[in-house]
Amino acid sequence: MNTFGTIFRLTTFGESHGPAIGGVIDGMPSGLTVDPEFIQRQLDRRRPGQSAITTARSEADRVRLLSGLTDGVTTGTPIGFIIENTNARSQDYEWLRHAFRPSHADYTYTAKYGLRDHAGGGRASARETACRVVGGAFASILLATAGVSIRAFISAIGSIDSPTDAQVADEILRIKELGDTVGGIIECHINGVPAGWGEPIAGKLSATLAAAMMSIPAAKGFEIGMGFAGCRLTGSQTIDEFTDGYGTATNHSGGVQGGISNGQQIVCRVAFKPIATLMRPVTGSDDTGHAIELNARGRHDACVLPRAVPVVEAMAALTLADAMLQARNSRV
Amino acid sequence: MNTFGTIFRLTTFGESHGPAIGGVIDGMPSGLTVDPEFIQRQLDRRRPGQSAITTARSEADRVRLLSGLTDGVTTGTPIGFIIENTNARSQDYEWLRHAFRPSHADYTYTAKYGLRDHAGGGRASARETACRVVGGAFASILLATAGVSIRAFISAIGSIDSPTDAQVADEILRIKELGDTVGGIIECHINGVPAGWGEPIAGKLSATLAAAMMSIPAAKGFEIGMGFAGCRLTGSQTIDEFTDGYGTATNHSGGVQGGISNGQQIVCRVAFKPIATLMRPVTGSDDTGHAIELNARGRHDACVLPRAVPVVEAMAALTLADAMLQARNSRV
Amino acid sequence: MNTFGTIFRLTTFGESHGPAIGGVIDGMPSGLTVDPEFIQRQLDRRRPGQSAITTARSEADRVRLLSGLTDGVTTGTPIGFIIENTNARSQDYEWLRHAFRPSHADYTYTAKYGLRDHAGGGRASARETACRVVGGAFASILLATAGVSIRAFISAIGSIDSPTDAQVADEILRIKELGDTVGGIIECHINGVPAGWGEPIAGKLSATLAAAMMSIPAAKGFEIGMGFAGCRLTGSQTIDEFTDGYGTATNHSGGVQGGISNGQQIVCRVAFKPIATLMRPVTGSDDTGHAIELNARGRHDACVLPRAVPVVEAMAALTLADAMLQARNSRV
Amino acid sequence: MNTFGTIFRLTTFGESHGPAIGGVIDGMPSGLTVDPEFIQRQLDRRRPGQSAITTARSEADRVRLLSGLTDGVTTGTPIGFIIENTNARSQDYEWLRHAFRPSHADYTYTAKYGLRDHAGGGRASARETACRVVGGAFASILLATAGVSIRAFISAIGSIDSPTDAQVADEILRIKELGDTVGGIIECHINGVPAGWGEPIAGKLSATLAAAMMSIPAAKGFEIGMGFAGCRLTGSQTIDEFTDGYGTATNHSGGVQGGISNGQQIVCRVAFKPIATLMRPVTGSDDTGHAIELNARGRHDACVLPRAVPVVEAMAALTLADAMLQARNSRV
Repeated sequence: MNTFGTIFRLTTFGESHGPAIGGVIDGMPSGLTVDPEFIQRQLDRRRPGQSAITTARSEADRVRLLSGLTDGVTTGTPIGFIIENTNARSQDYEWLRHAFRPSHADYTYTAKYGLRDHAGGGRASARETACRVVGGAFASILLATAGVSIRAFISAIGSIDSPTDAQVADEILRIKELGDTVGGIIECHINGVPAGWGEPIAGKLSATLAAAMMSIPAAKGFEIGMGFAGCRLTGSQTIDEFTDGYGTATNHSGGVQGGISNGQQIVCRVAFKPIATLMRPVTGSDDTGHAIELNARGRHDACVLPRAVPVVEAMAALTLADAMLQARNSRV
Repeated sequence: MNTFGTIFRLTTFGESHGPAIGGVIDGMPSGLTVDPEFIQRQLDRRRPGQSAITTARSEADRVRLLSGLTDGVTTGTPIGFIIENTNARSQDYEWLRHAFRPSHADYTYTAKYGLRDHAGGGRASARETACRVVGGAFASILLATAGVSIRAFISAIGSIDSPTDAQVADEILRIKELGDTVGGIIECHINGVPAGWGEPIAGKLSATLAAAMMSIPAAKGFEIGMGFAGCRLTGSQTIDEFTDGYGTATNHSGGVQGGISNGQQIVCRVAFKPIATLMRPVTGSDDTGHAIELNARGRHDACVLPRAVPVVEAMAALTLADAMLQARNSRV
Repeated sequence: MNTFGTIFRLTTFGESHGPAIGGVIDGMPSGLTVDPEFIQRQLDRRRPGQSAITTARSEADRVRLLSGLTDGVTTGTPIGFIIENTNARSQDYEWLRHAFRPSHADYTYTAKYGLRDHAGGGRASARETACRVVGGAFASILLATAGVSIRAFISAIGSIDSPTDAQVADEILRIKELGDTVGGIIECHINGVPAGWGEPIAGKLSATLAAAMMSIPAAKGFEIGMGFAGCRLTGSQTIDEFTDGYGTATNHSGGVQGGISNGQQIVCRVAFKPIATLMRPVTGSDDTGHAIELNARGRHDACVLPRAVPVVEAMAALTLADAMLQARNSRV
Repeated sequence: MNTFGTIFRLTTFGESHGPAIGGVIDGMPSGLTVDPEFIQRQLDRRRPGQSAITTARSEADRVRLLSGLTDGVTTGTPIGFIIENTNARSQDYEWLRHAFRPSHADYTYTAKYGLRDHAGGGRASARETACRVVGGAFASILLATAGVSIRAFISAIGSIDSPTDAQVADEILRIKELGDTVGGIIECHINGVPAGWGEPIAGKLSATLAAAMMSIPAAKGFEIGMGFAGCRLTGSQTIDEFTDGYGTATNHSGGVQGGISNGQQIVCRVAFKPIATLMRPVTGSDDTGHAIELNARGRHDACVLPRAVPVVEAMAALTLADAMLQARNSRV
């Protein structure tokens, strides 16, 4: 269950502090030119250590493409890739071997599997999303052939709506100095999707996008178009009346009707909770069920948002690339 | 792509005004006693014509179970079922043969498939959700063996939060008299789920629940735990600190950590947009791309919420039943 | 696990002596004209009671199409169908409630599920294949648009190779008079498949055809091209050298290289064991593990082959229709 | 479509002469101790260059396990692995850039994808099966916990039935000196499978084993139990009558009834065609559709059988591990 997608599929593997993380992209059509540096640049966007507002941990995060390309062109066969874990200090996490942090996956993984890889969050680490960015970069190459482009941005940080980049940085630094963390919202705009993508019922674009976004670590909410705000209004305030040429005068629906794209911009938002690792004492549990005081160590982000932006874009790209290929089979 | 689930699976078929709708439940384990009247009662809960606040269309909606049971006990083989469409007046919809209503799936289905069944919304009709309620009823029988129960309710209608049943009825009637429609929020509580259900990464419970709920007609938003409200807060306000015995003092996360249940109540909310069929003139399109004035005919609900409550419960049940069976394979 | 296919999918349900059998065809593209009488005629071909060499049980076997069509044209939405069980005498099978027949699925179903529907073989009855014939008929309509046609025939009955129809009938009657049964081979020719269908590695056409055919009741062997005979020869005797225009001088490979069609006729064969129900005493088991003598009752075929011919064609059609749609996604 | 299995899943990637091949094993339960040297030894069994009867190409073929293990125990998360391609001489294959060898996948891959990786067979190379052996080794560790063991052997080489190892070696050398190649049969015995594994209808053990085996390069036939020989006989010669305790006096069926294991030894056979690369001139095609004379270069096996034995065992293990996990969901 580490696979995203039906026809365009990404399977990922790897733990935060194991030898390497990686994945397999299956279903990428043949004949697409891939520039490895483009893939690397997408990956670099989510890398920590880029600025004062993300963790100081400096990861090389070089992606190595292992298959599926000949002379720089896709062959239609699966693209395997790995990213070596070069700068992992497992000993930083020895204190977690018998402890569960609050609001982390430490306890739930152990409940599920009977044991867990405790170093750095193991499989539950956000580091896994680096593989999604690689997959999403390939997906975006496919989507570009159909004229589809994707852009995500921070639309809220804490109580600040529509922040500038400077406001984001300031708010994160302010919260960090308090030893606290802060959440926010990432909005995603998908342009150029023609009418007719998305499958009815179980494969609605609104549902597959929701699943893709809610699978990102720390995601706690998803909405499309007017979303939660629209449910407070009336039909006369929220319908999108037609204009000539199948356009719409408004886009309250966010580009999807009945689960299928209508040719308008697809607009969705993802709510991210504040990171659960605080720079202050918290009450966790030991592995015998006793509540204990825990003090976080190591380097941690105070906000997931800056590094989640490329991940949101990647998940959108993976979802749309799958919808694009599925749409080929709608008609005889 | 008309199938929900991985191990516990529901496949549905049928159009609003065709001969019948129905489905196949695959993956129901053997040995479960099924009372057909229990299934029927669940189905009756979403039936229209029950009160002044839902449409007058009186559907018999009798489910007929065709397979998978012997002497009232499941055999482990697929359960086929159908619901005949007995009271459908297709001629009511002749005016839609060449017209696309705004904010409906009329245009998007046509864009996808090149044609559509125009009567009563065809496959995009909310009538399809009757099959999900049947599937959900079977899922709830399986879940009951694990002590899991599900309850959904209207937590907001329009601008009214936590309404009483009388407030819901009053608001719908008020809006209906205006020829308008209204949206709202349904909250769902899932009790009794042990720690350890849900799959990491692509099969996170938060993601599969999101996909299930967002596949319901008119759903535009999903959140779990504190959701969008929590993303405005800080980590110190939202972490769920442990108590002895792996419990938590709060439940901001809504019962899921890292995509896996933590033994607390699972709490999620679904935002439904106002129904797009208004009892007033609106601007639609003809099938040559010209905007035209349309006037709705026939009987229509002014709010989807009352009938969506059992559908939300059904989708929760289908999702959890699947998670329950998948969880059997976590450990050797 | 009652679903065949990845994109073009058939899910079946139903027991031999339950209320009805049926299925759902998902993934049929829109825009195809379907003549219900064509579907019925395909179904009639596998019906018992057609001649002296098949069982006397006269089933109406009328297929009822419930969805997915408007004005006789496919809409791209799932096609639900049922076949009522009208002539089933369950009391004929009361003696099987606590008995397991040798070389039947009686014991294995009970071992798997803890109980079984004992009437007429329940889910394991060959009657389930009627649903595959319906699905295959739809698949053949899709395949016809690509110029693909399928024909199966009995290539061996018992020790008689390449029998005429009269020889088949004579051999079955001869064996039947002995209270015995006989097996044989069905060969299937698939014409018109262009080069490039089939997926490498896990989705090889040779593998998906094998799975489809081996899922037919009583199938015990499958081969493609020269199959078992070819493995006794040398490479110089079995390679298919090219002619101009990408043709081949021979077709030892049976139209598939590396799992992908090469444009030549696809040729495969399926070995069917003799039916296990003999008109003579046999040693079965009761449900406490004691070997007991059993005497078959009711009406039974002495050979599965005549009725299996349309089933082999149906499984080939389902497999190729799926490959046809998958092939659309090979290239950008 | 590079994924085997439903719950226990192996996804492979990689070309013969690319940087590396590898895969992801998903669905391996937690709590299993894995000795990396055991995995390596299984891989070594299919390595070329081990004796006079296999090619001289000496590959290091060291498998590197990248994830899914902590302190040598499985964590339930996916196991990624790679095998570097260290000794590949791509220039050996420059002559194949514009040529299609007869009875190879050169032409069919090009027909499907519009281009291909021509070096060493690319994705169609038998080298890909090394990844299956790794996956099968993990599957066998899971199966061992249920008491299941698997053993395959060469049951025929060319016209020689039940050959000794010396006879196999002699026959291959004899054929090799003629510049020719030879086919044969591998038989596989699966011991210890309890009654009740395998899914009815689409997931029959006979069907999933057939698909698994027919996906091996050069496989052209599959049979279970008496297979093709049994179809020549009568029911009275082939039924497996019961003994006390649900045993059977014979095992003509090969351990599977109705697609479900019956507790007896599972016996199946796979027919492999002679390798298509001959050490003599053959008629291939250029990429403009003209037949041309080709002369093979490089080092090639004269028979696939010795190296296919561990691959057959691996495919059996992957199939049975999946069936083992699926069987957990049969009953409530």
